[in-house]
Amino acid sequence: MSMTKRAAAEFIGTFWLVLGGCGSAVLAAAYPELGIGFAGVALAFGLTVLTMAFAIGHISGCHLNPAVSLGLWAGGRFKGSDLLPYIIAQVLGAILAAFILYLIASGKDGYAGGLASNGYGEHSPGGYPYMSGLITEVVMTFMFLIIILGSTDERAPKGLAPVAIGLGLTLIHLISIPVTNTSVNPARSTGPALLEGGIALKQLWFFWIMPAIGALLAGFAYKWLGKEK
Amino acid sequence: MSMTKRAAAEFIGTFWLVLGGCGSAVLAAAYPELGIGFAGVALAFGLTVLTMAFAIGHISGCHLNPAVSLGLWAGGRFKGSDLLPYIIAQVLGAILAAFILYLIASGKDGYAGGLASNGYGEHSPGGYPYMSGLITEVVMTFMFLIIILGSTDERAPKGLAPVAIGLGLTLIHLISIPVTNTSVNPARSTGPALLEGGIALKQLWFFWIMPAIGALLAGFAYKWLGKEK
Amino acid sequence: MSMTKRAAAEFIGTFWLVLGGCGSAVLAAAYPELGIGFAGVALAFGLTVLTMAFAIGHISGCHLNPAVSLGLWAGGRFKGSDLLPYIIAQVLGAILAAFILYLIASGKDGYAGGLASNGYGEHSPGGYPYMSGLITEVVMTFMFLIIILGSTDERAPKGLAPVAIGLGLTLIHLISIPVTNTSVNPARSTGPALLEGGIALKQLWFFWIMPAIGALLAGFAYKWLGKEK
Amino acid sequence: MSMTKRAAAEFIGTFWLVLGGCGSAVLAAAYPELGIGFAGVALAFGLTVLTMAFAIGHISGCHLNPAVSLGLWAGGRFKGSDLLPYIIAQVLGAILAAFILYLIASGKDGYAGGLASNGYGEHSPGGYPYMSGLITEVVMTFMFLIIILGSTDERAPKGLAPVAIGLGLTLIHLISIPVTNTSVNPARSTGPALLEGGIALKQLWFFWIMPAIGALLAGFAYKWLGKEK
Repeated sequence: MSMTKRAAAEFIGTFWLVLGGCGSAVLAAAYPELGIGFAGVALAFGLTVLTMAFAIGHISGCHLNPAVSLGLWAGGRFKGSDLLPYIIAQVLGAILAAFILYLIASGKDGYAGGLASNGYGEHSPGGYPYMSGLITEVVMTFMFLIIILGSTDERAPKGLAPVAIGLGLTLIHLISIPVTNTSVNPARSTGPALLEGGIALKQLWFFWIMPAIGALLAGFAYKWLGKEK
Repeated sequence: MSMTKRAAAEFIGTFWLVLGGCGSAVLAAAYPELGIGFAGVALAFGLTVLTMAFAIGHISGCHLNPAVSLGLWAGGRFKGSDLLPYIIAQVLGAILAAFILYLIASGKDGYAGGLASNGYGEHSPGGYPYMSGLITEVVMTFMFLIIILGSTDERAPKGLAPVAIGLGLTLIHLISIPVTNTSVNPARSTGPALLEGGIALKQLWFFWIMPAIGALLAGFAYKWLGKEK
Repeated sequence: MSMTKRAAAEFIGTFWLVLGGCGSAVLAAAYPELGIGFAGVALAFGLTVLTMAFAIGHISGCHLNPAVSLGLWAGGRFKGSDLLPYIIAQVLGAILAAFILYLIASGKDGYAGGLASNGYGEHSPGGYPYMSGLITEVVMTFMFLIIILGSTDERAPKGLAPVAIGLGLTLIHLISIPVTNTSVNPARSTGPALLEGGIALKQLWFFWIMPAIGALLAGFAYKWLGKEK
Repeated sequence: MSMTKRAAAEFIGTFWLVLGGCGSAVLAAAYPELGIGFAGVALAFGLTVLTMAFAIGHISGCHLNPAVSLGLWAGGRFKGSDLLPYIIAQVLGAILAAFILYLIASGKDGYAGGLASNGYGEHSPGGYPYMSGLITEVVMTFMFLIIILGSTDERAPKGLAPVAIGLGLTLIHLISIPVTNTSVNPARSTGPALLEGGIALKQLWFFWIMPAIGALLAGFAYKWLGKEK
């Protein structure tokens, strides 16, 4: 496929990831009595990836995440020259999603302005400090990339990687929403942070650096682990 | 298959979508303490489609939704001359489901008459205004059709589209129940509205127009996005 | 496979269905604050069937349910002469499960003796009357068999019927636990009723007759619906 | 693959099982109002196995559990001489996970030190006695191995065993968290027990013996059940 269509697919897919994941958190998580809670948000994030992996995997590979593109490059699965257009498309999709979500949510009286941004320390949902956030984001992104690299290995069951990867992201959210509101994805952090501003924007660098470190480590690790000899 | 059997399959399938989705909402969502909440309703709606797509996909294609039939036509996957019998079968199945659900629910003392109809403004579950509902229904139906068109693309993993599409509908409900009670399906809106009457019936046009717009846009978009050159 | 092994597989599988489904209801559903609720029980029932369909489907076909065996016979998929040994094995597995569950649950102080039996009227969890229970059990079993007959049709995606059928049972529970505590399975009703006695035992006939009617109707319906001409 | 890489895969996989399963319990289960509860923890444990089975199944077979290795050996699927390196790698991965989880969790003010260890009697979450715990761990591990041996049988649907096995572990947790906090896995019990010490460590023997008995019985049972003649 042409890079135009691959970038368009990444744009649409990352738009869906942020609109669906952050949207479920903002609109439905804390709804009185019937709200979906963290488990529902975890399911929503995972299903954005599962659905898009089936829908656009054959077009762009469905990364939807700069850390994933980086980790696939480190693992020898993705060309370095494609990194920049992919990452730009992902970030733009995430920004549009945050904006659309803001339009929907702000129509309601009493909306406080949150868009489910990520944070540590005073901006951590459960009050976890910097070091807890750092370990969490590095380790969770590392394991996310191990799941991606392993389940798309040619020896893994055919056609089921979207299930493994999507539900892997659900799992990661089931563990770590209280710590950092779960990023493992710099684009997902960027959309809400740009629209929220303030502390979310000030901490945004953290959610580019830590996922990137985890992803690169996983790329190199699976290169060794998955090689036959 | 003959159109009689294809229409019968759409009738049964849409009956199941409305009975299962709206039924879980009316009977089980707000059950004291143990109720399934919005997340359970979201799962139920998605599983009606997942189960029917495996059960009758080989008979009728399992649309269960006039917007889906329309979007598949716009995407070049469905004959225009089949639109009318499909849509009629879908609407009739939805009406029967609403009636059966009413029979079951009304047996209980204190039943207030609701059948999980869709709405915006004063009829929105979370009090979201007209414009929030409009954006939500158009964008959610757009993405639903992208998932359907992409996951049934011949380059997508074989046999797993029912999982992607069913869980895609679950995801859409995880996001948007508070806004419009989630339609993305004119037949699903029609059944409960006809039996509830009142404001649900007055707003019914909205849940034919907005999903149709989203579906048509997605059909044209995927036609471009999915083409090799 | 020999009937001995097929019956042994049905025995183990139905044991698992009742232990897992009723066990999650008795032990975990109403646990203070952290309990799994109706949605967790619905998931548990479905996963007993999903896991067994993958584990013993190649041995016995994994019916785990007299109504399923009957519906498959009506649909032309199962020999009438195999009905009796299958049903006996299913009922015995269900009774053992109810007994094991009683041993586990009764160890706890304050255990009140319930084993998640089915009921209507005064024994309905949500107080639904006889007619609501009748419609629910007939329609839910009808749709369960449509899912089973359709997803195991040779034109359906290969190997995924366990997912469709298991999650179909989850869906049925998401809808109907408040009405009858959801049977659609005479063996599942028999195990707990025999050990609980009282009203559960007095209403047991209902949960043999209504699922059987729904299953037979579905068997005949799919015979027509699924035939090419 | 070399034993070094197979052991490394078991190490990473069991690390993920304990970090994900116990991590979701410690960090997210009891979060005020929005917490994921037992159902979320059950899903998390299952998804650690589902994701790893897709990611490293082709490297090590993805046991992640000494009882599974033992049961596979009893069922004639695993070499006795590989038991020791597998079990050592699993236990080391579990210990590292408990340590990392402690680092993350202990950063929060008011953390009480729990790491989701297993227990019976006074250490059972729901106050279930020794005999309830014994039956539960033996029967649940027995059924877990039946699921594993059956779904990886060459006559079962190809490529879907990770789904059956992962969701099977979810089901086991949906039933039995209140009884023993659910082990069925001596490595999963060992990591938290070593770091918690006290009663968790004193009861650790129980969670080696009972799962081992259940697994061995299942291995021998399936050897008979699954054989064609």
